[in-house]
Amino acid sequence: MSITNHQFRLDARPVGLPKRSDWKYTEEPVGEVDDGKLLLQVLYISLDPAMRGWMNEGKSYIPPVGLGEVMRAGGVGRVIASKDAAFAVGDTVYGTLGVQEYAIVSAKTVTKVDPRLAPLPVYLGVLGMPGMTAYFGLLDVGQPKAGETVVVSGAAGAVGAVVGQVAKIKGCRVIGIAGGADKCQYLVKELGFDAAIDYKAEDVKEGLKKHCPKGIDVYFDNVGGDILDAALTQITRGARIVICGAISQYNNTGAVKGPANYLSLLVNRASMKGMVVFDYADRYAQAAREMAGWMKEGKLKAREHVVDGLKTFPETLLMLFKGENTGKLIIKVADG
Amino acid sequence: MSITNHQFRLDARPVGLPKRSDWKYTEEPVGEVDDGKLLLQVLYISLDPAMRGWMNEGKSYIPPVGLGEVMRAGGVGRVIASKDAAFAVGDTVYGTLGVQEYAIVSAKTVTKVDPRLAPLPVYLGVLGMPGMTAYFGLLDVGQPKAGETVVVSGAAGAVGAVVGQVAKIKGCRVIGIAGGADKCQYLVKELGFDAAIDYKAEDVKEGLKKHCPKGIDVYFDNVGGDILDAALTQITRGARIVICGAISQYNNTGAVKGPANYLSLLVNRASMKGMVVFDYADRYAQAAREMAGWMKEGKLKAREHVVDGLKTFPETLLMLFKGENTGKLIIKVADG
Repeated sequence: MSITNHQFRLDARPVGLPKRSDWKYTEEPVGEVDDGKLLLQVLYISLDPAMRGWMNEGKSYIPPVGLGEVMRAGGVGRVIASKDAAFAVGDTVYGTLGVQEYAIVSAKTVTKVDPRLAPLPVYLGVLGMPGMTAYFGLLDVGQPKAGETVVVSGAAGAVGAVVGQVAKIKGCRVIGIAGGADKCQYLVKELGFDAAIDYKAEDVKEGLKKHCPKGIDVYFDNVGGDILDAALTQITRGARIVICGAISQYNNTGAVKGPANYLSLLVNRASMKGMVVFDYADRYAQAAREMAGWMKEGKLKAREHVVDGLKTFPETLLMLFKGENTGKLIIKVADG
Repeated sequence: MSITNHQFRLDARPVGLPKRSDWKYTEEPVGEVDDGKLLLQVLYISLDPAMRGWMNEGKSYIPPVGLGEVMRAGGVGRVIASKDAAFAVGDTVYGTLGVQEYAIVSAKTVTKVDPRLAPLPVYLGVLGMPGMTAYFGLLDVGQPKAGETVVVSGAAGAVGAVVGQVAKIKGCRVIGIAGGADKCQYLVKELGFDAAIDYKAEDVKEGLKKHCPKGIDVYFDNVGGDILDAALTQITRGARIVICGAISQYNNTGAVKGPANYLSLLVNRASMKGMVVFDYADRYAQAAREMAGWMKEGKLKAREHVVDGLKTFPETLLMLFKGENTGKLIIKVADG
């Protein structure tokens, strides 16, 4: 093989926001494709808040990315060489492909996706990990009932936008928290949220009081910090808080801010529960079918924020932490 | 009626630890006993961490005690005048009697207790609210399974000691966290805990690592603060944290310390849930029967810390916050 690969490798463990110098952009020839493996051209890679956690040392739900290793990333790629009978050249697949132009992966670790059913970026968004996270986090952990009030933070992000739309499909009153008037307008006008709170311009606690007159029955938290604390003051008796992420805390150089109002859980007999999407892997297909159906009916809208070019990776990743993306953040590595 | 009553009334909302001057010791004649009411001589009153919360203004699971009102307290008393056919002079009852020598209460709000079945103070401990809190908090919210590891903080207190013993009865490995060598020895030697951690002398996180080699499956929290944070670092996948109280935070003059390690809930797909014992009122009788049975079999030991004299109330209450009581803290107001 005479193909040259380019990659972003983790060169240093970041302190605070990841800097360009935390990465090494490397060039090397693509290696041999052994039996049971596939050579893929990476077409799109997924940029997710969870990546920040993978860059830290220490135990988590998944091992950290080692120094010198290609940065882990979900992606969609096309098979350009196959040593596995189940895959043919030209197939498109989803898997953990890494931040690179080409990937050699075990055929067992990837899943075929059909570009005729949905544009490829959708397999990194609504029909991918963010969509699955939203679906199972809301429905299995949050367990909303029709008529209840659901609040979601990071509402214009890849997970939050799906959480809110699925909650609407289930008959709930839905309030989104997002940063900026544009995002808030998008939530209400495009996605059908009942209201949106602009945390950059409004007092979140006051906004929640105003828009949740009966209190919050389900709070789906993607951000942590002060917004989680504000939500805790407004929960109803028996409320469920889904802990999906805490993007406000991922780049802290000091300690994480714990929720000072957590005793509201006691007063309200409420629960706060963490979730990791991988636990639901055996139900992804069923969820994807249901969500694809809602998309066809126009009840569930997908929006991807696609940035062009692998080389933009270090800066594009920061958009997540600055709240600059609306919808699923994706880098286009090569033409589909 | 020519009986004179003495009472402690809330005179000021405390800042930090309640001071003598936050109370007013008053004297007044006992009033009229109307139809449906009982006049009780108060024999024992219960001193509980929750009292600190009742002294604050603001919404909680129960209204605050108003300024000038007799301080709320559970108690056991003897009927000395009855205007309700269901109660006779000489009956002993449990109810919310207040920090006073005599109480006039609605007959509907009290429950008869039998002094031949258990000494009266036990009705304020294992067979009273602390016992019920432990029973339902552990079994209904914590849902321990045989072979799991259960950790309880405030373990030598009225709730904690029952939590640990019931967890042992259910076949769990049980670790208690308490302050001081005497309490720790009491937990292991008297109550049969597998180990105890003295938070005043040991690093709690290291102690938990040592004594919970398989991690913590159920953590029953009475204290909050740093101990909750330490426990969060050692929980297992799917762990249940029962939020029963946070005595370390009740006298804070600043903000409550939120659990900085709460993202361990996410990594471990764990839950943190609050509980209030009143929700289980319709099952108290069944729980009391089961616990009385365990007491008879010697599997569940009750210990009360009885201080003599109503007048000691302001100082005796502080014993809770200084960790000076072992077992249920009770004031004896009059001879049973």
